[in-house]
Amino acid sequence: MSTPDIHGIIGYTVTPFGAHGEGLDLDALGRSIDRMIDAGVHAIAPLGSTGEGAYLSDAEWDQVAEFSIRHVAKRVPTIVSVSDLTTAKAIRRARFAEAQGADVVMVLPTSYWKLSEAEILTHYQAIGASIGVPIMLYNNPATSGTDMSVELILKIFHTVENVTLVKESTGDIQRMHKLHLLGEGQVPFYNGCNPLALEAFAAGARGWCTAAANLIPQLNLDLYQAVLEHDLQRARELFYRQLPLLDFILKGGLPATVKAGLELAGLNAGEPRRPVFALNEGARQQLQALLQTLG
Amino acid sequence: MSTPDIHGIIGYTVTPFGAHGEGLDLDALGRSIDRMIDAGVHAIAPLGSTGEGAYLSDAEWDQVAEFSIRHVAKRVPTIVSVSDLTTAKAIRRARFAEAQGADVVMVLPTSYWKLSEAEILTHYQAIGASIGVPIMLYNNPATSGTDMSVELILKIFHTVENVTLVKESTGDIQRMHKLHLLGEGQVPFYNGCNPLALEAFAAGARGWCTAAANLIPQLNLDLYQAVLEHDLQRARELFYRQLPLLDFILKGGLPATVKAGLELAGLNAGEPRRPVFALNEGARQQLQALLQTLG
Amino acid sequence: MSTPDIHGIIGYTVTPFGAHGEGLDLDALGRSIDRMIDAGVHAIAPLGSTGEGAYLSDAEWDQVAEFSIRHVAKRVPTIVSVSDLTTAKAIRRARFAEAQGADVVMVLPTSYWKLSEAEILTHYQAIGASIGVPIMLYNNPATSGTDMSVELILKIFHTVENVTLVKESTGDIQRMHKLHLLGEGQVPFYNGCNPLALEAFAAGARGWCTAAANLIPQLNLDLYQAVLEHDLQRARELFYRQLPLLDFILKGGLPATVKAGLELAGLNAGEPRRPVFALNEGARQQLQALLQTLG
Amino acid sequence: MSTPDIHGIIGYTVTPFGAHGEGLDLDALGRSIDRMIDAGVHAIAPLGSTGEGAYLSDAEWDQVAEFSIRHVAKRVPTIVSVSDLTTAKAIRRARFAEAQGADVVMVLPTSYWKLSEAEILTHYQAIGASIGVPIMLYNNPATSGTDMSVELILKIFHTVENVTLVKESTGDIQRMHKLHLLGEGQVPFYNGCNPLALEAFAAGARGWCTAAANLIPQLNLDLYQAVLEHDLQRARELFYRQLPLLDFILKGGLPATVKAGLELAGLNAGEPRRPVFALNEGARQQLQALLQTLG
Repeated sequence: MSTPDIHGIIGYTVTPFGAHGEGLDLDALGRSIDRMIDAGVHAIAPLGSTGEGAYLSDAEWDQVAEFSIRHVAKRVPTIVSVSDLTTAKAIRRARFAEAQGADVVMVLPTSYWKLSEAEILTHYQAIGASIGVPIMLYNNPATSGTDMSVELILKIFHTVENVTLVKESTGDIQRMHKLHLLGEGQVPFYNGCNPLALEAFAAGARGWCTAAANLIPQLNLDLYQAVLEHDLQRARELFYRQLPLLDFILKGGLPATVKAGLELAGLNAGEPRRPVFALNEGARQQLQALLQTLG
Repeated sequence: MSTPDIHGIIGYTVTPFGAHGEGLDLDALGRSIDRMIDAGVHAIAPLGSTGEGAYLSDAEWDQVAEFSIRHVAKRVPTIVSVSDLTTAKAIRRARFAEAQGADVVMVLPTSYWKLSEAEILTHYQAIGASIGVPIMLYNNPATSGTDMSVELILKIFHTVENVTLVKESTGDIQRMHKLHLLGEGQVPFYNGCNPLALEAFAAGARGWCTAAANLIPQLNLDLYQAVLEHDLQRARELFYRQLPLLDFILKGGLPATVKAGLELAGLNAGEPRRPVFALNEGARQQLQALLQTLG
Repeated sequence: MSTPDIHGIIGYTVTPFGAHGEGLDLDALGRSIDRMIDAGVHAIAPLGSTGEGAYLSDAEWDQVAEFSIRHVAKRVPTIVSVSDLTTAKAIRRARFAEAQGADVVMVLPTSYWKLSEAEILTHYQAIGASIGVPIMLYNNPATSGTDMSVELILKIFHTVENVTLVKESTGDIQRMHKLHLLGEGQVPFYNGCNPLALEAFAAGARGWCTAAANLIPQLNLDLYQAVLEHDLQRARELFYRQLPLLDFILKGGLPATVKAGLELAGLNAGEPRRPVFALNEGARQQLQALLQTLG
Repeated sequence: MSTPDIHGIIGYTVTPFGAHGEGLDLDALGRSIDRMIDAGVHAIAPLGSTGEGAYLSDAEWDQVAEFSIRHVAKRVPTIVSVSDLTTAKAIRRARFAEAQGADVVMVLPTSYWKLSEAEILTHYQAIGASIGVPIMLYNNPATSGTDMSVELILKIFHTVENVTLVKESTGDIQRMHKLHLLGEGQVPFYNGCNPLALEAFAAGARGWCTAAANLIPQLNLDLYQAVLEHDLQRARELFYRQLPLLDFILKGGLPATVKAGLELAGLNAGEPRRPVFALNEGARQQLQALLQTLG
């Protein structure tokens, strides 16, 4: 197994539905993928938080995974989120994604009951032993309810052979410092907290996992380019320029805000699935104003 | 619609599986239900947190709901937890439970994305409009990730006609005070935090939702009886006697500890479903020692 | 050294000032003490949080301590709060209080820098070795910034001979359960969180440390009496009756609300010391309305 | 009033004592100041958290303030922390510092009782009206117990004329983003959280308030220089090099660790004042090892 070189801007897709989040609109999904690849993102990640993966039936999930991988068609690597509440279901998804050609699978240790460190490690081991592609370990206590310490993350990284990438979304920059120091600079980490983009890159993050690439891919890419050129001043300017939008989509909920933004850009991706609401009219106008200042 | 008189000790069932949480063992489920009813509990609640409802497939969930309701057979009321990540799925479960004869359904506003108050209210409204039986609103941020304020709970209680019972599991006794004061004594509230049993009854809780009734039903019932007799001293003694066990099952995770306790009592209920582990040997011996001092 | 029997309602005094908290008004202090003793409280506690002890100069502090002890004149026990930022200053205050005739001194491990457990234990040891009267250990992280675990509290209790009473003000009833269980029923604990009064007594608290005794001593005493008689129903009714006032004085800040309440009762105790504000007019009217319903 | 140009590395002094924190050693204080100025720091800040200002008597505080200002002798600006529990005492200190020649005074809204926003604003107004030098507003909830929102900070900044600098020590980089965006780039902010040094500069902080300048001034200054040159790669390397030491002094408590480090460098600054302990032998050896790798 060799890990593909995952870096830069990793664009997270929405899952387009109809009204109230019913049905699937794969055609719109394909167009949203093309928008990001054409803009230059370095990887595509379907079925993450933004993709409402947790709200899909198994049949829908399979359709979206298969379609996304086939539609990306190796133009860039595809990272498929395969998290599920039970180990058995997560393994099923991981195998399915691998069979369809996913380059990497992402695993969040989501659970209903709080998991012990041994339970989390065993979960990753079981998934790792079932597939041959790399795993991006994902820490996001706000959605999973489980906060993995840096020590636990490193233990899993060193124990499970195909856990080779770490996505950190606590928003606490000290976690990345610790990953760098305790990991002796050998653990590739990625940032999943949009308003931390500048500082995560400053701290050495290899990539930025973001749904913002659906709306402002050029600004995302320019920030990454400034970082590659070590130009702190330009990076700061580019970051502050896009920060109001990053704050807005985080605060408003990624599925609702990104779908609204895509519609403003002419791509109807439908509404989030209930109980999540679509953006209301006031927020939609705020979003439009924000996007216009960045156009 | 009339709400059945739900009070006293409400026993939460486990869902018996085989090794590593595979398969269903309905026969063991039936015996665990009989144990509690024979001991005198006032209601039975399948498919809650203890029942690992979140980890079941839809088909399994339906089997457990149907079997439990039929097996209780109106000896006491049955309260079926129908929570699910999407509104559509929660409605499907609620309708199924009602069709099978559930007396009450319980709804936790579980979600992946943080929900706004309007989204939570609409979720309860949609479920309420779909069924004719009462709903027990359930607040448990530790498992759902959503903390409903007392103000929001009361708004839902007053807006959705069949939300007529409130289960509070934050463990913060001030929430119950506020429910009593702001609800003007008209909102029946139930306690779902085991180590708060004494104080919740002191504050006026109408019932105690507990999986401990699988293991020490007589002590649970005696505490309730002392409360009915306003005997504070006896209630305190009974509470402190069972508190070490209540602390143990909460800390060790209810499915793992209660299943281990049932096995010690001669009823093999299998293991929790992975990623959750069964109790390890050391903890099992602690549990045995605790149960022996209470025998 | 023998510990006096401290139980029941322990009334905390304000420190009357002039406008904007300037000057001392010992005459008003004397009258506020008499009000509480005449009403029947079981002990008087000057210079606590309510007494704005932290805001006094050393000279003022000495005056208030000396005056309070002499004015109580052993009608009931006096518990003087001697907390200070440095160990040396806390020792000075403890010795002064003892010399003036204090029955008990209370010590909160207040600090600017977070203290280690060894530092806290040494602090109590140093104070304990300097005096011959009992110490009431006081845990209140909201004001001290230091949260002592039950295990640490018990370690201090068992190590420092004259630490013989524990006041718990986290508002978390589980701390009292743990004090009872781990302390094997031998650690006398007192409640310092007003809205927890009912449950703390239910859990076995020996007393209630409260500034509410300045305003509604009879209701406080009646609640304690109902608890002594093990009458849970009457205790619950008495508690809910006074709870709105207890919530109000906690939320509004004890010095400001209690001084305003005393003034409404005809005893001008001045204003809190800046930066703390006196109660504004709207809040004062709310307080008056609350007191009238309890009159 | 004109605000001096405060930028770069602002070195915080310790207050040297004798054994157990008794007495003052002004000679050692003078040498510690010279060390930092000779190394090139851009400002000196006595009597902050590191300086144990909260633990000094008024007479000691005055001596340290007067001595420090006179010893710096305008070689660089002096920023004197004048925080105190009451508004009156803080004003006294602020006036004293100004009379002695302080260039800036720093004010943390420390309090025993939680302060409302109006109380905090009035506190700053009262101090501001009493002096003619600029005020550095200081937000550090971990030591003060009061967390000022960015909105409140900006309200004070725009209301009190001589509040012209903001020191942020929550460690949350989003506060600095918000200060930049809501303050429209016009609010000079300084970082007081050592392990955030790199990211705070990336976000636009004008300076770094640090006691580390007592031990590794050249590394601190080099990081600032790399930032001035917009060289992100060099800044990152310099930051990670010093981060283990920054983590160590924060975790071990600044007075204890910095005094131990000064002693290792040949300058005996005594021990912290009790209840705070001096560094134990194991930690001292860790510190020595850390310093040697940086030498």
